[in-house]
Amino acid sequence: MQIFTYETLRKFTQTVFLKLGCSEVHAEKAADVLLAADLRGVDSHGIARLSSYVRLWEIGRINSTPQIKIVHETPSTAVVDGDSGLGLVVAPRAMAVAIKKAEQVGTGWVAVKNSNHYGIAGYHAMQALEHDMIGMTMTNASPLVVPTFSRERMLGTNPIAVAFPAGEEPPFVADFATTTASYGKVEILQRKDSEVPIGWLQDPGGSPTQDSHAVSKGGGMLPLGGDREHGSHKGYCLGAMVDIFSAVLSGANYGPWVPPYVPFLEKKEELVGDGIGHFFGAWRVDAFRPAEEFKIHMDRWIQRFRNADPVQNDTRVLIPGDPERECEKRRRTDGIPVVEPVIRDLAGLAEKFDIPF
Amino acid sequence: MQIFTYETLRKFTQTVFLKLGCSEVHAEKAADVLLAADLRGVDSHGIARLSSYVRLWEIGRINSTPQIKIVHETPSTAVVDGDSGLGLVVAPRAMAVAIKKAEQVGTGWVAVKNSNHYGIAGYHAMQALEHDMIGMTMTNASPLVVPTFSRERMLGTNPIAVAFPAGEEPPFVADFATTTASYGKVEILQRKDSEVPIGWLQDPGGSPTQDSHAVSKGGGMLPLGGDREHGSHKGYCLGAMVDIFSAVLSGANYGPWVPPYVPFLEKKEELVGDGIGHFFGAWRVDAFRPAEEFKIHMDRWIQRFRNADPVQNDTRVLIPGDPERECEKRRRTDGIPVVEPVIRDLAGLAEKFDIPF
Repeated sequence: MQIFTYETLRKFTQTVFLKLGCSEVHAEKAADVLLAADLRGVDSHGIARLSSYVRLWEIGRINSTPQIKIVHETPSTAVVDGDSGLGLVVAPRAMAVAIKKAEQVGTGWVAVKNSNHYGIAGYHAMQALEHDMIGMTMTNASPLVVPTFSRERMLGTNPIAVAFPAGEEPPFVADFATTTASYGKVEILQRKDSEVPIGWLQDPGGSPTQDSHAVSKGGGMLPLGGDREHGSHKGYCLGAMVDIFSAVLSGANYGPWVPPYVPFLEKKEELVGDGIGHFFGAWRVDAFRPAEEFKIHMDRWIQRFRNADPVQNDTRVLIPGDPERECEKRRRTDGIPVVEPVIRDLAGLAEKFDIPF
Repeated sequence: MQIFTYETLRKFTQTVFLKLGCSEVHAEKAADVLLAADLRGVDSHGIARLSSYVRLWEIGRINSTPQIKIVHETPSTAVVDGDSGLGLVVAPRAMAVAIKKAEQVGTGWVAVKNSNHYGIAGYHAMQALEHDMIGMTMTNASPLVVPTFSRERMLGTNPIAVAFPAGEEPPFVADFATTTASYGKVEILQRKDSEVPIGWLQDPGGSPTQDSHAVSKGGGMLPLGGDREHGSHKGYCLGAMVDIFSAVLSGANYGPWVPPYVPFLEKKEELVGDGIGHFFGAWRVDAFRPAEEFKIHMDRWIQRFRNADPVQNDTRVLIPGDPERECEKRRRTDGIPVVEPVIRDLAGLAEKFDIPF
């Protein structure tokens, strides 16, 4: 493991995207979104994925000069065609449309098709905050997750993020995969050759397993809840809702037809839509009550929950977004740790594109 | 246990609401919503709760002749003041406003304050279906749930329901509490004096417990996920989001200040808003893509998931809403089973109001 400054990694990432043919503006935005994951401690979704974006570009799945277009709209809704662009670029555009519509009629809703992976969901939801809006986003992803009672992988880890502005307090930012654990957490245990807890994965036969490599062997990730008795049907509902909003509503691929991101899944011959799909929403707070009033109550909510009587005195109740915000503060000062396999990946990219690293 | 026809129970319920002073229209609507739970097999939220509504009316918490009003609005949003009315009556009015706004500008969003319990969430979300819209609702509720790391009960079981229309297939209707198990499921095990699985409840000290009576002894219900390792922080996020949308945005009471419904909790002296809160949304499908096109893809989604390779051949993958729809079909024909404690409750109401039972 080595520590790099945010600026070093950001500059490197931006240069790689420029080498793919992205415009200056797109390369800068894509680097900004991708590195937000590293800053916020979601290491699996940041620079660790840079070489995967390059791989998708090499096989023609990513268009580095997309014409991102609104293909249908009403006063509060739009459908955006991402033209196979980087999700890292398509998503901020789509969220900006949602915010614009919310300014005009109170709320804005944008479904996106023909896109690719868009980095951490929380980044996009948080764009609403500076406008005194509540932001929401979800996206579908490679089919790795088994619905309750299914042996077959049908859904992605399909995250949901929602960001609420507050006043004196920092904002409330929820951002989570609709599975028991994110694939990033599974990968961390894979690298250590450790077992995963029961309730995270199932084996190819459909039984619970502790094998952290079970998914690439034909098993699946389990929906939040883990098993039927503990509510896995609710996690399945959540993942399914994300899939339908992101893809059935937009015209993207859904369910098992989602073009895979992970190398161990083959791309399906048959498609039911265009690329992968995302969904974005923005609610103007003062479309409901004065923003200052809302923020006073958000502060009260946050303070009350933070001061809830804890089970253990040294482990206080957290507000969603607390750990990521603290991580960002720390990493902006102290730098971002990068593990050896990722450093090798980045060195490979530096060589491929003849750029300094 | 005895079996009653839907019409018998519905008529009885309507008569009780009339005795509380509700108008004909309100009594009919309230009975309709309440009994939808019994039809759909969510027995805890149906006629079993009738005597609780009467108890809340007796202590002045329910206004049987509410003036339900829009107190703020924009083209796509509104805040509704329920005037302490039955949630069973307030909610359908609010959902109708959301649908009207969606007709006009593509989507509609309504936050409700000053309301009471509104029956099963799924009923309200499903109102959107006949308009070729996607319907969504959530509500906060009595504080029974402990956030991750908390010994203190801070949130309700805060359900979320979303209904998507389909074409040839029946609609996709998700409706679930954001806890591992609903309180209704806990009550079923209480009545049998059975233990609950680990992951559903914690004891007053904050440890996992199998005591089905733990909540009334000062323990708490666990968020979906059950413990930190299995993602309880995600269930806590979901419950918190429901609380904020339903109450911080509308001006209702939130978190531990929510006026309790269960008899073992005292009403708080201090309030931070008016009554309990709900949240409703409607998205017009053709604000995104032609409704017929969407429905063709929903059918394909549903058929593909229903035919997913199952773990066991006799337990197929279900589509959210399947079990409830099948239950409704059965109970409309064969009648609705009512357990002895509920029959005694209803007999008590019959005597109190001098109506036949």
